[in-house]
Amino acid sequence: MKSLFGSPGKLSGLVLRTSQCLFSAASLAVMATASGFSSATSFSFLIATMGLEVLWSFGLACLDIHALIFKKDLHNHIVLCLVVIGDWVSAILSLSAACSSAGVMIVFIKDTDICRTQPTLACDAFQISIALAFLAWFFLAVSSYVMFWLLANI
Amino acid sequence: MKSLFGSPGKLSGLVLRTSQCLFSAASLAVMATASGFSSATSFSFLIATMGLEVLWSFGLACLDIHALIFKKDLHNHIVLCLVVIGDWVSAILSLSAACSSAGVMIVFIKDTDICRTQPTLACDAFQISIALAFLAWFFLAVSSYVMFWLLANI
Repeated sequence: MKSLFGSPGKLSGLVLRTSQCLFSAASLAVMATASGFSSATSFSFLIATMGLEVLWSFGLACLDIHALIFKKDLHNHIVLCLVVIGDWVSAILSLSAACSSAGVMIVFIKDTDICRTQPTLACDAFQISIALAFLAWFFLAVSSYVMFWLLANI
Repeated sequence: MKSLFGSPGKLSGLVLRTSQCLFSAASLAVMATASGFSSATSFSFLIATMGLEVLWSFGLACLDIHALIFKKDLHNHIVLCLVVIGDWVSAILSLSAACSSAGVMIVFIKDTDICRTQPTLACDAFQISIALAFLAWFFLAVSSYVMFWLLANI
């Protein structure tokens, strides 16, 4: 069993999970507090997906901390299988939510000029939240590839 | 070297590549002939991405046909590396384009009612094109996982 950067039960794995958790929590918080986020269904989907990612990454970060403290080995087939499936579902959902929100944002800013005509919409906050969601997805994608690689080599 | 369903140079691989090529070409054709597609930037992005996927999948389908006719083995490290990188870039772009277009479509239908107030927009065609793009992405995702698994096991 190879031990790669970002493997479960390693410090690099914990750093990756913590980054995912922080960026998705920040994305969720910024979007949920932005005025007018309910104007687009995609923004609500982003909030739901980021909520799911916070829970998933927080759970795995706790598992990493437990493994680091008690020096447990998490490289077994069942744990890796579950983490790979969860990671990929979560990564695909995150990318979908971030991209659909980005598509809506382009309509609001470029295609229709709604952001200028309706100052009640917190367009800057929407954009920050979407950027944070892309960052959260990036770290989750790195974890997903590492887990899939480990599973293929087990 | 394991030989999985959808491996390069196998009939199942050729079927997967042909499906990707056909669905992305159909998505591109439906979107490009729909009236008012230029109203949203995301739809133009979908056309560009589907065009890229048609070229990529067609190229790999030709490689599969060549390997099948001349009984060549495509399971070498350099070919697999190139195909994995191309597949993953193409899959992420396809999912991004399909999701951003779906986000825009939800704004047009559910959030703002533009589709009813502007009958010049071919909303049905947009939806068909987006559904075809998701199908093309699904087949590309299957290929990407198979290729990544093969690369990890080489």
